[in-house]
Amino acid sequence: MNKNFYFQQLFESQSSTYTYLLADQASGEAVIIDPVDITFERDVKLINELGFKLKYILETHIHADHITSAARLKEKFAAQIVVSSTAPVTCADKKVGQGERVSFGSYILKVLSTQGHTETCLSFYLAEMSKVFTGDALLIRGCGRTDFQEGNALKLYQNVHSKLFTLPDSTIVYPGHDYKGFACSSIGEEKKHNPRLGSGKTADEFKKIMGDLKLDPPKRLQEALPANLLCGNV
Amino acid sequence: MNKNFYFQQLFESQSSTYTYLLADQASGEAVIIDPVDITFERDVKLINELGFKLKYILETHIHADHITSAARLKEKFAAQIVVSSTAPVTCADKKVGQGERVSFGSYILKVLSTQGHTETCLSFYLAEMSKVFTGDALLIRGCGRTDFQEGNALKLYQNVHSKLFTLPDSTIVYPGHDYKGFACSSIGEEKKHNPRLGSGKTADEFKKIMGDLKLDPPKRLQEALPANLLCGNV
Repeated sequence: MNKNFYFQQLFESQSSTYTYLLADQASGEAVIIDPVDITFERDVKLINELGFKLKYILETHIHADHITSAARLKEKFAAQIVVSSTAPVTCADKKVGQGERVSFGSYILKVLSTQGHTETCLSFYLAEMSKVFTGDALLIRGCGRTDFQEGNALKLYQNVHSKLFTLPDSTIVYPGHDYKGFACSSIGEEKKHNPRLGSGKTADEFKKIMGDLKLDPPKRLQEALPANLLCGNV
Repeated sequence: MNKNFYFQQLFESQSSTYTYLLADQASGEAVIIDPVDITFERDVKLINELGFKLKYILETHIHADHITSAARLKEKFAAQIVVSSTAPVTCADKKVGQGERVSFGSYILKVLSTQGHTETCLSFYLAEMSKVFTGDALLIRGCGRTDFQEGNALKLYQNVHSKLFTLPDSTIVYPGHDYKGFACSSIGEEKKHNPRLGSGKTADEFKKIMGDLKLDPPKRLQEALPANLLCGNV
């Protein structure tokens, strides 16, 4: 175990969103993944208590169910906002795509383009600690919907299979949401037990599963999307 | 990192309770800490999917805010229920106290008697993985109340300081509850930032803080306590 690695999984219960704070305790450099507006004060307090220097605010995608606190965190900590190179946002400081790297202290997150839930979906792989942050591309025993925001079931299936399910089975999966009280999973578990994307399901079966979902639009879609295109600076 | 170690933190949102599932993937032996009645089906499904043999059901204390699923899990998996030697329950299979050990596969949990929130409070220390499961003795930036169930603020202060704050600073603290969306902390963090028990607070200051809380009784006290004295077999 690497004693310099700091890790906190934070939960925002209204939208069941996970935010992640990662840091290199040797240098104090930290990144936060998918921070939420209403937990801004909590997150600022934690970062300050721990004395971290927030370097990057990473968005796994442009969210439709909650508003990001990215712009406020950027202002507070002089951090940089990082989004997908496919995201039509002008407020980001850095845009990244497949294979690029984002570092904090001695740690490196490898960017995986896991489009399909949305066109802006990224996962972040921290090989050294065997962790992958999958946003809404791969959830525990589930996945993000594919019926709006340029969602594409086939693309999601292909990206999960080629970029996530090819990671070592022991890699811990930290999703963007969970609605049943699970904190994490592993690539091996999801390959075996994910009822949509794993357990031998074909791309055609996945497309049918996703097409049959008939979900209501997210409650905060009309509010969240425009706000998040401005990095939450509303 | 030990590749055979399985770890899942599970959340029950009505009582904001954390349940933990730990296993040795080499032997398949597992233990569950503080399982809750209403998440019984979820937990059974997970254990079955992973193919674990549930060996022990551990209670950090006799809970007053939710009902345990211990008796149902025992029946389902032929597991043994483990509680504190101070707990007046006849349904337990094993009673343990300070310094005793509970093993699953090649892993050993050391029992720490961390009374003070209640007379039945235990913590479980997994030295090999630098984790301690503190129940309600030590919460993230807080602690369990000490005003009923033979609660005793001085005893809690002494136990936390002598048995938890003496663990290595890097030990990850997994509490019995969290109400703000934090998953874990560390001994070093709590020694420094716990506003009641850490940050230089004396025993007298702690006693005053706890005495001034004036909390309402837990909503489910009258229902939960008698049920949990029967291991949830109601």
